[in-house]
Amino acid sequence: MSYQLIPNQLLSSFTETRDHSLFICKPLKTEDFVVQTFENVSPPKWHLGHTSWFFEIFVLQQFLPNYKLFNQHFLYIFNSYYNHMGHRVDRDKRGLLTRPTLKEVLAYQTYINEAMNELFKNDVPQEALKLIEIGIHHEQQHQELLVYDCKHILASQVIPSSFAHKAYDLQPESKTTEWHTIDEGLYEIGHEANSFCYDNEKPRHKVYLEKAALANRLTTNQEFLKFVEDDAYQNHKLWHAEAWDYMNRHQIYAPFYWRKQKGKWSEYKLSDESDLKLECPVMHVSYYEAAAFAEWAGYQLPTEAHWEVCADRLNWGQLWEWTASAYLPYPKYKKPNGALGEYNAKFMLNQKVLRGASVATSEKHSRKTYRNFFHAHERWMFSGIRLMKTF
Amino acid sequence: MSYQLIPNQLLSSFTETRDHSLFICKPLKTEDFVVQTFENVSPPKWHLGHTSWFFEIFVLQQFLPNYKLFNQHFLYIFNSYYNHMGHRVDRDKRGLLTRPTLKEVLAYQTYINEAMNELFKNDVPQEALKLIEIGIHHEQQHQELLVYDCKHILASQVIPSSFAHKAYDLQPESKTTEWHTIDEGLYEIGHEANSFCYDNEKPRHKVYLEKAALANRLTTNQEFLKFVEDDAYQNHKLWHAEAWDYMNRHQIYAPFYWRKQKGKWSEYKLSDESDLKLECPVMHVSYYEAAAFAEWAGYQLPTEAHWEVCADRLNWGQLWEWTASAYLPYPKYKKPNGALGEYNAKFMLNQKVLRGASVATSEKHSRKTYRNFFHAHERWMFSGIRLMKTF
Amino acid sequence: MSYQLIPNQLLSSFTETRDHSLFICKPLKTEDFVVQTFENVSPPKWHLGHTSWFFEIFVLQQFLPNYKLFNQHFLYIFNSYYNHMGHRVDRDKRGLLTRPTLKEVLAYQTYINEAMNELFKNDVPQEALKLIEIGIHHEQQHQELLVYDCKHILASQVIPSSFAHKAYDLQPESKTTEWHTIDEGLYEIGHEANSFCYDNEKPRHKVYLEKAALANRLTTNQEFLKFVEDDAYQNHKLWHAEAWDYMNRHQIYAPFYWRKQKGKWSEYKLSDESDLKLECPVMHVSYYEAAAFAEWAGYQLPTEAHWEVCADRLNWGQLWEWTASAYLPYPKYKKPNGALGEYNAKFMLNQKVLRGASVATSEKHSRKTYRNFFHAHERWMFSGIRLMKTF
Amino acid sequence: MSYQLIPNQLLSSFTETRDHSLFICKPLKTEDFVVQTFENVSPPKWHLGHTSWFFEIFVLQQFLPNYKLFNQHFLYIFNSYYNHMGHRVDRDKRGLLTRPTLKEVLAYQTYINEAMNELFKNDVPQEALKLIEIGIHHEQQHQELLVYDCKHILASQVIPSSFAHKAYDLQPESKTTEWHTIDEGLYEIGHEANSFCYDNEKPRHKVYLEKAALANRLTTNQEFLKFVEDDAYQNHKLWHAEAWDYMNRHQIYAPFYWRKQKGKWSEYKLSDESDLKLECPVMHVSYYEAAAFAEWAGYQLPTEAHWEVCADRLNWGQLWEWTASAYLPYPKYKKPNGALGEYNAKFMLNQKVLRGASVATSEKHSRKTYRNFFHAHERWMFSGIRLMKTF
Repeated sequence: MSYQLIPNQLLSSFTETRDHSLFICKPLKTEDFVVQTFENVSPPKWHLGHTSWFFEIFVLQQFLPNYKLFNQHFLYIFNSYYNHMGHRVDRDKRGLLTRPTLKEVLAYQTYINEAMNELFKNDVPQEALKLIEIGIHHEQQHQELLVYDCKHILASQVIPSSFAHKAYDLQPESKTTEWHTIDEGLYEIGHEANSFCYDNEKPRHKVYLEKAALANRLTTNQEFLKFVEDDAYQNHKLWHAEAWDYMNRHQIYAPFYWRKQKGKWSEYKLSDESDLKLECPVMHVSYYEAAAFAEWAGYQLPTEAHWEVCADRLNWGQLWEWTASAYLPYPKYKKPNGALGEYNAKFMLNQKVLRGASVATSEKHSRKTYRNFFHAHERWMFSGIRLMKTF
Repeated sequence: MSYQLIPNQLLSSFTETRDHSLFICKPLKTEDFVVQTFENVSPPKWHLGHTSWFFEIFVLQQFLPNYKLFNQHFLYIFNSYYNHMGHRVDRDKRGLLTRPTLKEVLAYQTYINEAMNELFKNDVPQEALKLIEIGIHHEQQHQELLVYDCKHILASQVIPSSFAHKAYDLQPESKTTEWHTIDEGLYEIGHEANSFCYDNEKPRHKVYLEKAALANRLTTNQEFLKFVEDDAYQNHKLWHAEAWDYMNRHQIYAPFYWRKQKGKWSEYKLSDESDLKLECPVMHVSYYEAAAFAEWAGYQLPTEAHWEVCADRLNWGQLWEWTASAYLPYPKYKKPNGALGEYNAKFMLNQKVLRGASVATSEKHSRKTYRNFFHAHERWMFSGIRLMKTF
Repeated sequence: MSYQLIPNQLLSSFTETRDHSLFICKPLKTEDFVVQTFENVSPPKWHLGHTSWFFEIFVLQQFLPNYKLFNQHFLYIFNSYYNHMGHRVDRDKRGLLTRPTLKEVLAYQTYINEAMNELFKNDVPQEALKLIEIGIHHEQQHQELLVYDCKHILASQVIPSSFAHKAYDLQPESKTTEWHTIDEGLYEIGHEANSFCYDNEKPRHKVYLEKAALANRLTTNQEFLKFVEDDAYQNHKLWHAEAWDYMNRHQIYAPFYWRKQKGKWSEYKLSDESDLKLECPVMHVSYYEAAAFAEWAGYQLPTEAHWEVCADRLNWGQLWEWTASAYLPYPKYKKPNGALGEYNAKFMLNQKVLRGASVATSEKHSRKTYRNFFHAHERWMFSGIRLMKTF
Repeated sequence: MSYQLIPNQLLSSFTETRDHSLFICKPLKTEDFVVQTFENVSPPKWHLGHTSWFFEIFVLQQFLPNYKLFNQHFLYIFNSYYNHMGHRVDRDKRGLLTRPTLKEVLAYQTYINEAMNELFKNDVPQEALKLIEIGIHHEQQHQELLVYDCKHILASQVIPSSFAHKAYDLQPESKTTEWHTIDEGLYEIGHEANSFCYDNEKPRHKVYLEKAALANRLTTNQEFLKFVEDDAYQNHKLWHAEAWDYMNRHQIYAPFYWRKQKGKWSEYKLSDESDLKLECPVMHVSYYEAAAFAEWAGYQLPTEAHWEVCADRLNWGQLWEWTASAYLPYPKYKKPNGALGEYNAKFMLNQKVLRGASVATSEKHSRKTYRNFFHAHERWMFSGIRLMKTF
């Protein structure tokens, strides 16, 4: 990265980001911070500890003279998946940890913030600033996961509860469908040099694309409901073999958080559980469902290259959009050295790329070259569908 | 039951019991109340709710006019295993419930206590008093489980923590081994009529016993350590086939909560983690281990009949003692009608009887006819070994 | 065992038994000898090899001078569960072994028979004769399992096939129900000294029994069908907790091999698949079902002691009869030394005793003291129900 | 497909192919035809039945007047994965079917062959000829699987056995490594119109490629052994996250069929088990291992496009070669109508493309546009590694 970071700007971005993590958790009770309602969920308490740990281990330990670890055990407890950083609590056991308590995690948050402020009192080398910048983006990523996980935890309760505000509700998009055409030809995709991006967005490179056109809006609940009511979940012709097995084994017949009671569909939203808003985009669909829907509708999903080339013409979107593309390294991709080499590269197998951003994406955390990725069966995140047609 | 219950006495017993449940939980943090660290554990919060639920559903709903349920959802959340009482949260999902919060559970506790006091202001029929008496004994049983579960939760933490008092530590027993002989002949066992007991302790009936003698003390850590160091866990001859499979599959080589570090054995106790106290009774052994130990030592485990016949001569004991007896109904056993018929009878298959009581048993909750029962592989409870010899 | 065995008699018994194993397999195709249709089944080829192995390893290796092993690999392949005899093929992997082929197994059979005949040409010590006697009984036990396993293998096929003879069909029993009373009092059970029995039938010892009466006949299909049609499989009150879980998890609603098609019940028998014979005894029920049926009918299952005391008055039976008794060692039981100590003792945990014999039991392989045992959930064997009433 | 098929030529190709399936099975014993030694394996008997079924259901039923099904049950038993064709035996239960016997399957083979010859006596429409051509290619694919499965079945036996001929042994390739360069630029890949190919090889389309160079030979056992001995299987940095989990969970430390005994590596080959041939290509590696090896060696795996563009210059190869490409539809891919639409399209998710052919590939069954595909963890097939370097 050839651009220069300005300490003051970075510090205020740091402060803003750290505060926002706490803001998201505001509506939670202490008990909600502890549990892991399925394997992909991390306890909110763990997210807070882990994002602090990131600054502690990658920044403070290296760059703040005489820095004293907050608690030796946290190195083990709050490591996520960095083999480079040694052993850690098994991912599916995070919900068994009652200690540190929330109070202690919040004290850790404060301790790290103060140490970071201390660090900024002196001259901070660009190398450290780069790591802080990554730490901020890292925390923003976790903020989005935090929203997913809060939703899952609250939705798992017998006693209904909600976030009591509507920040994460979707809005209807354009009522008419228009198609943005990409002509056949050679294009360039990937991030250009002088601002922040993840390693997986580089290098910028050429791709040859067939002619295609992307819809100007996301698929709606109404459209998806037709698919459901056409018994598409029972029609093997629409599904990948792996999807068909999975859907049958888990007896899935509708998007996650949809529920049919007395013949009427409702949807759990963070603000409440209420009737399906037909005109809003359908969300919480897996790649399996997105691909089957496109097949049923006679269209397909965009490749990530078509998406990126068209992005400036799209009013993208309230949800992460499944693409047809496998998550693979770009040609001549180089993974970073050290622990941060584990950030992206090791996941480039058997996952699908999603493009765009969602209503749960933190501000300043989206760009058109951003490559998000999930497994094809996953549905607890804020995912949706944009169709593409070919000629 | 032909004896009469006296309301005043019962109310003070009720009050005392309810307070004791809260007393046990004192050292816990809010977060500790939420988790289920393995399937047999219930979150402490759940124990508190469930014991309240028992009074609500079996007593207050029936006998307190105009009683208003605290919360409709609690009927579902706090039912343990009573099919008679309808659906319930899956046993292994209790640790996912963050709601009701601890605060709400404590409010429920208070609400039930007040309603019960209200009930006692009027004439309470004997039928209700009997149910309250069962509710008290039921809560005392849960108090013991609460201790087991607190121990498991705290022991599962990366960050060491403890109960900081020694109420549940064991003491050394007699230094010399003596044997109490039971002569061959016909005996009677089972509970006699005029005080409280569970249905499984009845009817009193005749059994013919072979001559045998019971040790005056429990097996010690020192004795069990010899078994461990004799590689008994690797010697298939000592183990039941089912045990041998289980121990190998789970790679078990020592009692639960024992840990070997740098060649030295320590033991997690609620008061702390410290060196194995050699002169204290060994605890947290499964039936598998108890039976293999007896085989190795050249003895056997007592039958429950031998134990009961000898009980008055034993200084029983700081731990529940595994017997050789399968948990079966006594001859002519009748299970109670209604939901309480599910209290014991449906578990009379593939479990082993334990006799005695433990340091975690609530006061007034032990008697020599008491039949406790667990599966042969279970080890998180306060179980130990008393040997018997035959002639 | 104080009785003396006569070599000539034993040899003809040996020859007869060995031939009978082959006779049972006659209707099979080579392919049927190979598979393991569920974990409890052993491939018929394996049964044949294993019973030969038993004579090879316990008799020929020790007592026939210069005996040469047929094939070193067979020691590993045909060991069943004798840890004493070293490693072995995992029980659930027996159906993956194509080699030795059936032809080779039959050659092994012949080789062992010839070596045994060779052995009998000289003076055989009583110690060896005792082992041969055990080997014969061991093979007879496997003959019964062979019938169960053939039935399971043939029943698992898409293409219907059968044994084409009726040796294993059941017959109707007494049309009227009479009750044989056992008076309250002290009795003796267990095997007396001077003929063959297994170690688990000894020692003979006193038991005190309550008054009870046993039915003169087994429960019929007609009676069991009423239980099914009374929705007893959906009524939790009748079932042990473990049974209730198991039946729901495996979605079991009728005895094994029953099938309902177009509203009509049929039953797979070795001779054919045909309409349920209502007047015949119900077979292929688990202990779960036997106990639930007894509960529903207002009776109970006999204890093994009541059964044995009454046996001479019963016309027992066409099926192994579930008892209420857990499979436990008799008082003062001693397990044999060496590998044969693994024959029975290590299974004395979490299994139930069955008494009697079945139409698949080899001749001379039944006696009233015989203690058969299976796990409570098992159903592929020839098991049935005899009711007992108490007073 | 615009080319015309000539009946006579097709019939002799049909006959040759059918005979070859039987030829492959020659060294097998009847018992070997029955088992399924792990989930991916099909019993050889099943392969034979399934390839006959394909002709019966897609050709004879439609085009031979008055054709009579051989056996109604075979429609169910020998369907592989065509949902379109109705229900079928679960894939992992194929090894439980003893019926039809091998003899009956061979009779089915003959019956189908005769009916096909009958068909050819009259005028066969092009539409039927196309289906027969697919049936031939389909059978050739199964011939390769048959070799894999025979190898797995024989290698799973305790008693060593082999194919006793060397048709499937590998040979050393070039001793020197040379690199074939592909220049940066626009290329076309995919099948051209006028000969047989599968639907997934079409349509031919443009791709833009970066400059790269492919090795002239496959990676050898010697090279892979260095990787093993460098503890690469213990070095998390080299592996995808999914691979790292999988390898640890399954404790994999070397290619499939490698075995280390007394410090020496041997390899199971169909001809025998013998010392690792160091100069031969390494085979039976998963994508996980291929990718980790390339990372370790400082190279990468070819994309399928680079491979195809370079294919004419490669002496490809004795093994299927893992590529870096995900198995995805080509731009504007159209899946066929009807059951044959299930042939390829539904597997285009979470699999990797392999290119080339192997020593087990049937003659006339390879071409440079052929897209083979397997899951990243699979290793029982004849897979190998060719490296690519970038600039």
